[in-house]
Amino acid sequence: MIICATIAELKAELARRRGQSPNGLIGLVPTMGYLHEGHASLMRRAADDGAFTVVSVFVNPLQFGPNEDFERYPRDLERDAALAEKNGAALLFAPSVAEMYPAKPLTRVLISEVTTKLCGASRPGHFDGVGTVVSKLFNLVQPGRAYFGMKDAQQVAVIQQMVNDLNIPVEIVPCETVREPDGLAMSSRNVYLNAEQRVQALVLSRTLGDAGKLLTEPGMTASRLVAEATARIRTAPLAEIDYVELLTYPSLHPLDPDLPLAETDAQLILALAVKFGATRLIDNRLFQPTGGGRHVQNNDEIEASPSHSH
Amino acid sequence: MIICATIAELKAELARRRGQSPNGLIGLVPTMGYLHEGHASLMRRAADDGAFTVVSVFVNPLQFGPNEDFERYPRDLERDAALAEKNGAALLFAPSVAEMYPAKPLTRVLISEVTTKLCGASRPGHFDGVGTVVSKLFNLVQPGRAYFGMKDAQQVAVIQQMVNDLNIPVEIVPCETVREPDGLAMSSRNVYLNAEQRVQALVLSRTLGDAGKLLTEPGMTASRLVAEATARIRTAPLAEIDYVELLTYPSLHPLDPDLPLAETDAQLILALAVKFGATRLIDNRLFQPTGGGRHVQNNDEIEASPSHSH
Repeated sequence: MIICATIAELKAELARRRGQSPNGLIGLVPTMGYLHEGHASLMRRAADDGAFTVVSVFVNPLQFGPNEDFERYPRDLERDAALAEKNGAALLFAPSVAEMYPAKPLTRVLISEVTTKLCGASRPGHFDGVGTVVSKLFNLVQPGRAYFGMKDAQQVAVIQQMVNDLNIPVEIVPCETVREPDGLAMSSRNVYLNAEQRVQALVLSRTLGDAGKLLTEPGMTASRLVAEATARIRTAPLAEIDYVELLTYPSLHPLDPDLPLAETDAQLILALAVKFGATRLIDNRLFQPTGGGRHVQNNDEIEASPSHSH
Repeated sequence: MIICATIAELKAELARRRGQSPNGLIGLVPTMGYLHEGHASLMRRAADDGAFTVVSVFVNPLQFGPNEDFERYPRDLERDAALAEKNGAALLFAPSVAEMYPAKPLTRVLISEVTTKLCGASRPGHFDGVGTVVSKLFNLVQPGRAYFGMKDAQQVAVIQQMVNDLNIPVEIVPCETVREPDGLAMSSRNVYLNAEQRVQALVLSRTLGDAGKLLTEPGMTASRLVAEATARIRTAPLAEIDYVELLTYPSLHPLDPDLPLAETDAQLILALAVKFGATRLIDNRLFQPTGGGRHVQNNDEIEASPSHSH
């Protein structure tokens, strides 16, 4: 695996690669590092596609708010490189902040509407930073496909919107959330949790699992489902709710709170953001409409299972 | 010359071209159509570079204000196609508004600071629309080089800033303003001028020519140069000044009004926007710093000359 710290090295390696295989697929897995099994599953997916897989590791200051965890966000490039290589990455791009932003950047890629809900409401400016850095990475790597985890479902929706609007020549490949054996969604931020928080954080995946059952109850509405999910999360004393929302996906439109959910044809997302101490965790679940009813996607993913799923 | 009205056609033609010549240069000349000798000079420059030249013709609604001339902006695709073919274009891309914006676009490429001065101040939102549509065209065509006329010097500065900030893999080639034999800068909007306005509009190029001489006067300052230029433009009774500004280029920073210009090392731009009736014309001139003095660029371009210059 090649490791590049500069844009010049990256471009030289990619030009060499393109010279050897002009029509070869380049796959990009953009990450903020501190890689885990979720990231690994994205790399394996790219390898399954036969791609020359580029993994970027860059903790992007532009997408952190002034009171967020940019400084203390976990970093371990040596470990990341080992994990990337083991999972088939061909090139690891790990630039410094000065390399990515050599001068004060004056350009922002701003996506409206889909960025105002959920994490966009809780983290003002976050998706402006995401759209901008992902644009830069797309322009630098020029991948045919880019792989993103569905734990950040809103991020996937935002990036797909940007790709559509700006005609960016890349296929976005959303990949299923990977979970710990007990159901907790994998996240680099999980390392912040102490033992008690770690146990109580299971309330997120359990709530999403329960929602699949609740949804099939006759007459279930958006407002009742959100109320039930909120009540379940509140059973964990350390849980401090940021949001619990049921929206359409990927457009993230609100639902009529009193309309029976069986009567909507849209794909829905139940999205959760909950703090345990200083650590903010997110998780979500998609529900697919099927003729005359609603199908719960990836039910098995959410229940505790004895092995990693992806 | 191939003419494409849809993105699908454009992509198919470009893929075919790239298959034939994987390392061949693609040159893009983005225009709003109603092509004139200025556009032709950009196409010839691309042809001189050996590029497969793509000319886009698209009157972009996103860059017009609500009270501007989007509806009445002149259009003549047949004439444009003939001019493009005659000047060596290989492909003309002329999409409809619905083709470029099939759904309400939620994404904007916003460039700050360099967009707040000059035309950015007079036309709020204008450069947001420019940045967004040029991003789209770059993503659709993926040119190695893109050619822009320096009559829109601020546009060149804004696009270069965007390219730098977002790492867009394209080289921006600024090309000299092309003028009518009597000095008027070529513009699609010149057709709006009646005979009297057309004569008085020469005050712009004349003022820029005079500025080159004024600049060499000992102790000349920014405020005096702007005052002298303003006074010259006011000699034309139909001229209604939007702005007359002397700034650094390309960063468009203001100058200390009382500092002798000989003491600044920056490249400077004298930029004019003046209305004649309902028609707003722009023109500008760059002044290069040279060791201990200032060099007037392209002096011959500005003076009346018996033939087209470019």
